[in-house]
Parts: sequence; C-alpha cells; structure tokens
Amino acid sequence: MGGYIPEPTFTLEGWHILHDFRRLDYPAWFAASPQERQAAWGELSEILGEWEKVEAEGKGSFGVYQVITPKADLLFLNLREGLDALLEAEARLNKSRFARYLTPAYGFYSVVELGSQTGPLDPEAPYIKPRLTPQVPKGGYVCFYPMNKRRQGQDNWYLLPARERAELMKAHGETGRKYQGKVLQVISGAQGLDDWEWGVDLFSEDPIQFKKIVYEMRFDEVSARFGEFGPFYVGKYLTAEALARFLEVV
Amino acid sequence: MGGYIPEPTFTLEGWHILHDFRRLDYPAWFAASPQERQAAWGELSEILGEWEKVEAEGKGSFGVYQVITPKADLLFLNLREGLDALLEAEARLNKSRFARYLTPAYGFYSVVELGSQTGPLDPEAPYIKPRLTPQVPKGGYVCFYPMNKRRQGQDNWYLLPARERAELMKAHGETGRKYQGKVLQVISGAQGLDDWEWGVDLFSEDPIQFKKIVYEMRFDEVSARFGEFGPFYVGKYLTAEALARFLEVV
Amino acid sequence: MGGYIPEPTFTLEGWHILHDFRRLDYPAWFAASPQERQAAWGELSEILGEWEKVEAEGKGSFGVYQVITPKADLLFLNLREGLDALLEAEARLNKSRFARYLTPAYGFYSVVELGSQTGPLDPEAPYIKPRLTPQVPKGGYVCFYPMNKRRQGQDNWYLLPARERAELMKAHGETGRKYQGKVLQVISGAQGLDDWEWGVDLFSEDPIQFKKIVYEMRFDEVSARFGEFGPFYVGKYLTAEALARFLEVV
Amino acid sequence: MGGYIPEPTFTLEGWHILHDFRRLDYPAWFAASPQERQAAWGELSEILGEWEKVEAEGKGSFGVYQVITPKADLLFLNLREGLDALLEAEARLNKSRFARYLTPAYGFYSVVELGSQTGPLDPEAPYIKPRLTPQVPKGGYVCFYPMNKRRQGQDNWYLLPARERAELMKAHGETGRKYQGKVLQVISGAQGLDDWEWGVDLFSEDPIQFKKIVYEMRFDEVSARFGEFGPFYVGKYLTAEALARFLEVV
Amino acid sequence: MGGYIPEPTFTLEGWHILHDFRRLDYPAWFAASPQERQAAWGELSEILGEWEKVEAEGKGSFGVYQVITPKADLLFLNLREGLDALLEAEARLNKSRFARYLTPAYGFYSVVELGSQTGPLDPEAPYIKPRLTPQVPKGGYVCFYPMNKRRQGQDNWYLLPARERAELMKAHGETGRKYQGKVLQVISGAQGLDDWEWGVDLFSEDPIQFKKIVYEMRFDEVSARFGEFGPFYVGKYLTAEALARFLEVV
Repeated sequence: MGGYIPEPTFTLEGWHILHDFRRLDYPAWFAASPQERQAAWGELSEILGEWEKVEAEGKGSFGVYQVITPKADLLFLNLREGLDALLEAEARLNKSRFARYLTPAYGFYSVVELGSQTGPLDPEAPYIKPRLTPQVPKGGYVCFYPMNKRRQGQDNWYLLPARERAELMKAHGETGRKYQGKVLQVISGAQGLDDWEWGVDLFSEDPIQFKKIVYEMRFDEVSARFGEFGPFYVGKYLTAEALARFLEVV
Repeated sequence: MGGYIPEPTFTLEGWHILHDFRRLDYPAWFAASPQERQAAWGELSEILGEWEKVEAEGKGSFGVYQVITPKADLLFLNLREGLDALLEAEARLNKSRFARYLTPAYGFYSVVELGSQTGPLDPEAPYIKPRLTPQVPKGGYVCFYPMNKRRQGQDNWYLLPARERAELMKAHGETGRKYQGKVLQVISGAQGLDDWEWGVDLFSEDPIQFKKIVYEMRFDEVSARFGEFGPFYVGKYLTAEALARFLEVV
Repeated sequence: MGGYIPEPTFTLEGWHILHDFRRLDYPAWFAASPQERQAAWGELSEILGEWEKVEAEGKGSFGVYQVITPKADLLFLNLREGLDALLEAEARLNKSRFARYLTPAYGFYSVVELGSQTGPLDPEAPYIKPRLTPQVPKGGYVCFYPMNKRRQGQDNWYLLPARERAELMKAHGETGRKYQGKVLQVISGAQGLDDWEWGVDLFSEDPIQFKKIVYEMRFDEVSARFGEFGPFYVGKYLTAEALARFLEVV
Repeated sequence: MGGYIPEPTFTLEGWHILHDFRRLDYPAWFAASPQERQAAWGELSEILGEWEKVEAEGKGSFGVYQVITPKADLLFLNLREGLDALLEAEARLNKSRFARYLTPAYGFYSVVELGSQTGPLDPEAPYIKPRLTPQVPKGGYVCFYPMNKRRQGQDNWYLLPARERAELMKAHGETGRKYQGKVLQVISGAQGLDDWEWGVDLFSEDPIQFKKIVYEMRFDEVSARFGEFGPFYVGKYLTAEALARFLEVV
Repeated sequence: MGGYIPEPTFTLEGWHILHDFRRLDYPAWFAASPQERQAAWGELSEILGEWEKVEAEGKGSFGVYQVITPKADLLFLNLREGLDALLEAEARLNKSRFARYLTPAYGFYSVVELGSQTGPLDPEAPYIKPRLTPQVPKGGYVCFYPMNKRRQGQDNWYLLPARERAELMKAHGETGRKYQGKVLQVISGAQGLDDWEWGVDLFSEDPIQFKKIVYEMRFDEVSARFGEFGPFYVGKYLTAEALARFLEVV
C-alpha cells in the first residue's frame, strides 16, 4: 500500500469477436424431412453468403468449425467492426430456420487487442492495422480458450511493475515466435466484456501444434505463475461445401 | 484477535434494483402465429408502458437490452423504491404471454449504495439524492457484473483499517473519474440480498469504454488485491421500437 | 499436532427445518383451465390448512414466501419436531396437483441450534425452549443463506481454542443485538445434514435491514476471517390470501 | 523432495457399493393410470425381491431410502461382491418400468475399506470379515457423504509420515467410539473409482446423531485440517411396505 | 524471475483419442418397437464393424464400455491417427439412429504422449512405436480420469527444474511398475486440446486394482504435491455380443 502507483497496460483495440459455440440436435435434424432440411440449409447458406460479403468488403471475417467432443458441435466465429454488427450476426443466426436444430453451448465476446507494458503503441505503425483486423484462415484447425492473469498472494500480475511484466511477456513472445509459420495467434481482450480477461485463438494446419505450443508456453514463467486457463475448444474449418456434407444436404 | 475493533463502512441506500436476464426461445417465438406474436407483443408493450409511467412519476427507472453471447438474450433492468415493486414487476413479466417464450438466464437483486469508509454521509447533501435514484440512460450500452471484496489470508478487505480502505477507494475513484463523461457507474450493494456483495452497472455510448475502464481499474491496488469478479453481461439499449424490430412484430 | 486437544462446541437442538425453494412454471399455470387451477389451489389450500393446524398444536411452524430473482419463485418454509414430519410435508406438497406446476430450485435441511463454546447450555433455562422452537413471523420478509466456518491455513475455526471462539462469537453477538427489534435471527445447524454447516434465517419488516446487518457483521472478525457464505434468498411473506392473489385464483 | 519416502496406507477391500440417488417424477407418477402404476410397482417389487435373495445368500446387502430436500427423492443403496453385480443391479433398475418415473440425481461407486497407517491388517482376523461385508440396517436413517483428505500447502495428508497419520486417525477413532451403539459407520474407498477419495455412510435410529457426530468430529485435528467434504444426503429407511405407501400403490 | 530459464518437457505424440461418454435414454429405448430397436442396433453394429476394420488395418483402436453410476451409461473409446478420423467417428455415431437414444455425458480429446524431462526421446527406438499406438484390451475394465499438474505457490510443477521433475517422475514410475501385469496405463496429453492437461486410462482385469494403484500413487510426492484430479469414470468392456445383450436386442 502507501507508495503503490498503478502502471496499467497500454492497449490498442481492433475488431470485435463473437465465438458462438452450438450443439446440433442430430436426431431432430436427421428426422426432419428433406424439404425442411433444404429450406433450413438454404437460409444458412444465405447467412454465410452475407458474412462472405462482409469479409469481401473488409468489414469483418468469419469461419465455421466442426468441434470435437460433445462440448459443442459447431463454432460460428465472427469478427466485426463493432458490437452492433456482432449482435446482428448473432440474432440473424438465431432467427434462422436452422437455429431450430441448434442449442447454445458456449459463447465469448472479446475485442482484438495489442498490448504494451512499457508505453503506448503507435496506431499508425504499418504492422498494427493488419494485426487489429485479422483474417480467419480459410482452412486448417482452430483452438480457442479464454484465460486470466492470476491475482493470488505473491502471484499477482496486476501488482507487478510494468518493467517486470514486459520482461515476462517478452520471454513468452520468444516461445511464440518458435511457432511462426506453424501457429497463428490472435489475442483478444475481454475485460469488462466477458467472464475471462482474454480470449486466445490459435490457428494451424496441424492440431498437434496446439498441444506443442500450449505445453511449451506453460513452462514460461508468465504462464506457470500467472496463467489461469478456461475451457479449450478445438475444431476443424468447414467450407460451405464441407458444412453441407456434414449436414448431408448435398 | 484481541484488540481488533471492527470499522464497518457507512452507507446510504437508494432504489432497489432487479437485473432480470432472460433467454428468448427463438424457434418457438418465430414458429408462433402472427396473431399470437402480436398478442404477446401487445402485453409486453403494455408492461413497458406501465414501467414508463413509473419512471415519469419518479418512482423508478428501467431499460431493456439485447445481450451479446448466449448467456442471455434480453435484460430487463428495473429500479424501484422498494422490494415490493420489484416483486410486482418480476411477476408482471412472468405472468405475461410473452413469458411463454422466455426462460430465466440470470438475476441479481441489489440496492443502490453510496459508501464512505471514514464517516456517515449526509443524506441531505444535494448531490446525494440523484445518485441514490439513478436514471437508466435511454440509449447506448450496459455492462453489468457482480463482485466481492476478497477475504483471503493477507488480502482481507474487511480486516483493513477504515483509513486504509478509504485510501484505496480514493485512488480507485480517481481512475473512475478519468472516464467521466464516457462511462456512468452505478454501484449497488447486495450484502444479505444476493450471492455477491455488490453489483456494478456501467453505461456508455461505446462498449470499448467498458473494456478500457475495467482493465485500467484492475491495476488499482483495491481491484488487484481485493476484487473478485462474477460474470460480465454486455447489452445494447433497446427502445420499444428497437425491441419490436428485434422481435419482428412491426 | 501432538498436544492438540479438541474443544467441540456445546449445542442444543430444536425443531427440524426444511427450506424448500421452488420455481413456478408460469406459462403452464396460466395456460391451465380455471377449473384445473381451482382444483390445484384447492389442494394447496388444504395443505396450508394442515400446516396451520400443526402450528396451532405447537408441533411446528411454517411460512410461504414470494422470492425475488429467478433463483426461485416460492419458498415453502417448514419447521417440525422431527425429520419424519418434514419428509411428510415435502412429499405432501410433491404429491399435490399444484406440484405439477413447480420445479425444485433449492432445498436445505437443518436443525435449530443453540451453541456455546465454553460449556453446556441448560436445556431447562426458561429462555431456551422458545429459541429452540421459533415461530415464523406472519408477515414481513425473509433472508435465508447457508454458511460454513473456514478451515484454511491460519484461518481454521475448528482449531481455535474454545476461549477464542467464545470471544469472537461474543463480539458478533453484540453486532446482532444492535438489530434487536429490527431483525429476528434463527440459526440452524446442518453438520451431517446438508452441504453447508449452518443455515441462517433473518426475518424483518424491512429488507434493507438484511443488507445492513449482513454488511455490518462482515466486519466482525469472526465473519471477516472465518465466514464462508452460500447463496442468499430473499422473499416476501405471503398469507394464504396473498398467495391466492399471486396465483390469480381469487 | 530428496529424502521423501512414501508410506502408503495399508488397506483391505470388501464389498463394492453403489449409491444410486434418484428423483421421482411425481407429476408423471401420479398422473399415470392405476394399472400402469401397479405394473411398475410390480416390477420394482420383483427387483427388491431379487435383492433380498442376494442378501439372504450373503452375497450383498441393500436398502431403499426416502431422501430429504430436492437433491434426491430416493436412494437405492446396494452392496455386492464385485463391480459386475453392481452394474447388473443398476441396469436392472434402469430397464424397469418404474425407471420411466425416475431421473438420476447422484451416484457414487466405492468399495468397503479397512485401513491401517502402520502395517498390514490381518485379513483372517475374526473382526475383519464382518466389517468388510456390512449389512444395511433394516430401519432408521442413513447419512451419506463423500470426502477427500486435503493436499494443500502445509496441510497435505499424503505427505505426512505414517506415524502422524496413525495418531490423527486414532484420536478420530476415539471420537467415533463415543457414538458406539448410536451410529454405525461404514467407510468405503473410492480412489480410482469415483470423484472423491472416500464415501462415508452413517446409520442411526435418530438423525440428530448425524449432526452430533459430524460436528464433534470436525474439531478433531484430522477433520479440521485435512477433511474436505462433498454433498450430504440424509434419508429414512423404507421397507417394501413403506415404499408402497410412499408410492401410494397399496 | 530474472534468471529463470524454462525447461519444457520433451514429448512424442501418438494416436489421437476421443473419450465419448453417453447416457442411454432407457425409457425411450425400451419403449421403442422391436423393429425400431433392431434398426438402430443394425446401424450401431455396422459402425462397430467399421471400427473393427480400422483396428484390423492398424489405423486405430476402440472399445465400448458399460459405465457405473449415472455419470454415464456407455463409453465409446476411439483412438485414431489424427483429429479428422476422430471427428468422423464422433459424427458417424451422432448421425446414427441409435444416437436418438443417447445424450452426451462427457467427452475428452487428447493425444497419446510419451514424455521425458531430461532430453528428447528417440522416436525410432523399438519400444516407442507400440506405446504411441496402444491397443485397447478386448476385455476387463477401464478407469479414465483427466488431471493437471498443480501451479500454486510453492507447489508449481512448471517452475521446477527439469532434474527435479525427472526424479519425481522416476519415483512415480517405480510405483507404476509394481502393477505391471495387473494394470496397463495409457497417458495422453491434452494441453491445448481439452480442459485438463492429461488424460489417464487404466485397463485391468480387476477393478480393485484401479483403487490400489491410484491410492498408492497418491502418496508419491509428485501426486501428493502436484496432482489435481478430475472426474473418474469406471466401466466394463463390452464385446458386440455383450452390448447386444445389454441393449436386449438378441
């Protein structure tokens, strides 16, 4: 107490993200008539078409994934310029005929974040804009998990001097860089937005890389001492065609 | 032990608040006949009209929000002069036709609170009354979360001398003041009323401000050491017209 | 270890208590025919009549409450001379027609307890009997919550010498006495009976008193260091007439 | 580290136990036709008859209980010589007509255990066999709860020298012996079998004894420092006749 | 901080594993017509036949288990060369007629892992390949549980020097070796893949061995100080014939 002076992290914010995990009611879907399924698929295709248009216009990005384990069956991942567009995307799906066969599994609202412990980032720097508006890779696999920084006894991230936080994050970044070309990371902040402080998306052509990077990073001091991890979701990217095959509407 | 003399916080209490989060049964709602939907919407409009009247008479305030992520779809936020009026508002909604399409998602009962660590507040002071009876802004976004003050080992808020608590809260207030004009805060106490000790409502025209203020405040010693945070809910204010559009009854 | 000699609390036990929280299926109830509702209400009235008789015979007490927030809609609070009578009361309600419109929300089984840290209480003392067989006030509000005494590292209630426990409880009792006439407290023990060690019922004419007493008590060392609190439920007492109005069967 | 040499507990194992807690769907049961209920009861009686036969043959024991609070309505408690027989008993009930009116509430799989911290027990000792194959008392009440031994910082049961564990258990046993004749204890181990390390069954003619023994034992150092307790379930023994009355099929 | 140099574990990865626990809707299954049940069983047999073929081709392994306690009724355990094959197996079951009678109970995605604290393993060593592609025993019992290594205060696995981790794991391995011939262990890593860091499968002809090995290992320092354990699932292997008998389709 007394002499404590807070040294908050400096951040820049980019696109807003909604991770919308759903369970598919398989029995109801496959018990529905072919006409009903075609109608529902037609509406879903229309929605995917709209999202593709948003992406083409540079106003967002999206991906649909088949998720392993019964935690969820499908992930609808949407990035947009603001919350309003995400609310619209969420309601658009909920109001569709296909939503009759979906139940909510998990959701997470966050905003793409670039952070610096030691001073403000320059929003005009050329490498900044693309990192604030990341494109969802059109293939491969995703690993999503939310996380907190610990605030317990001696292991209180938010009471560390900024300089120490910077050192810890630097070492962590070096581990991450070993996976360059193998794993794309997108970090989003969820303070004030959802139940965990951050969301992490890893994208890779090989799901074993999710295991390797997360395991190796856990030995970094910043994860070992300060990382608190939520549920992990892993899925495989589905093109519209692959989704149609999954739903057996082709 | 031994010489410990408790120094409780001094508080003033204002309006009672019910945060009533609901999920909308989209499939059932959109499968209902137009007549049924109009009838349900008619009843809901009537309820909103009654709540507007309460507000006009200075006996309360309210807002309806579209909530992001499947944690909830709608928030019915009501402030009233007492618990009886909140029980009536809750039952009024539950008994309505529209409630056939709603399921409970989360609720929180609290009372607007002004607190002082060092001495009683003057209930007659001119700035007090409006802060005890806050008006819900008619637009923008809301961020709601419940919280506790930690009582663990060395980090036990309730064993701190009042003077130290006052210093910590003062520094915290300074962080809050940086957001004046950007974020309106309403603090309500829920000791003895609900499962967390406080509820926090943030209102803003820009949801990014929720992220910025919560993140910055987390570096304040009072949050870093003593803050325990529950789920975060973020929603967009809906006028009656916007709600009708959302429900597609216009 | 070594020289440790346990000094258990001395207790006297009184009536057995069942807190039976229920959700009302509003849509089903209000969709039922008036005849069906009258029939269900008729059975419920009969049950309430039986419970009144038990109370008149001095063999127990009861109250029905309308509960705020979707945690529950109704609380059926029953005190009886033994577990058999509580099992009967629970099954009586479950078997009734009205139970078709109820779903369980939460329950808690405990026994009214008077405790002393320093020596056995005299069961013949004139003030003891009424405190072991408390009457539910016929009006006002209830606040119920379960709680534990902490057993963590340095803060282990059960390893404290009885003398220290006695001092801590005495200070706590003094805080309680400030609310005499405003809040009636009933403490029940649930060791070996339910998932928390105690249940606490507060009764008051003004729900703000729940907030004030719980908040003030949290600064007592015994709560600050040792109190672990479960969910809080707040409800308003319903006479048979008020319950009929709530259910719209009059 | 370094010089640490593990000193595992020595154990003997007896009968396998399944605690199978169920909720009864009261509305569906009492809405069913008398014929349907008689048919379901007929099947259930047959099952109880089979279990009685197992008991008569010395190959197991069983009891049915009416459970207080909505955590569960009925407990089917079965002890058998091995897991196969328990799987059969569980499936036998699940496949019966009566199971249409039951939903799972909680279950626990464990094996009767006698343990010694200091050396192997003699399986041939005359007092051992009966304790490994305990009979369910045909009356009174049951209290069941699962528990762990703590492994936190200084309070790590599994790092204590066997001699210290033996002293702690001895003192605990002395508390237990005070309740001889009032409370019968059956301890079962669930390491590798279920989510808690042990299950504890207390049987008594008076449920107040559950409160008294659990409360008093909590002051023993072994419970105060090392005991972590799961949910508590309390029920009343039902003979076949009492069960028939409860189900109103007589 | 400062001089900390992370020393990650060296790992080799083998087959991908999906533990897919399901509840069987007994009432619906046994209420279905014999034709419907035969049709559903026919599809399920076909799936089992496909999985046998995968196994015969050396591209995976599988087992079906009857699980004790209501946590689950059936476990479908599948090992495959990659995530795609697991996604297909999961969807194949979900899309089948039999899935109309199943609900998800729990799932876990992990990858068979061999680890070394002190240096890379030689993937060409003759004993490695079989251990990375383990065969599910065609009989006996399974015990599955997920686990973490603790990261709390002084007990932080990931901050230990590799040499200390190696010593702790070596002692643990010695305990495991005592059970050679009695218990087969398969360790799989789930970092970045699921909510716990590892999955553990024990296979044995005698379920008491699960109790004995887990209990004894808990006294190893590595478990006592660092082991955090999730839910435990125990099941009995079902051949196709035994499954048919369980489902009463023969």
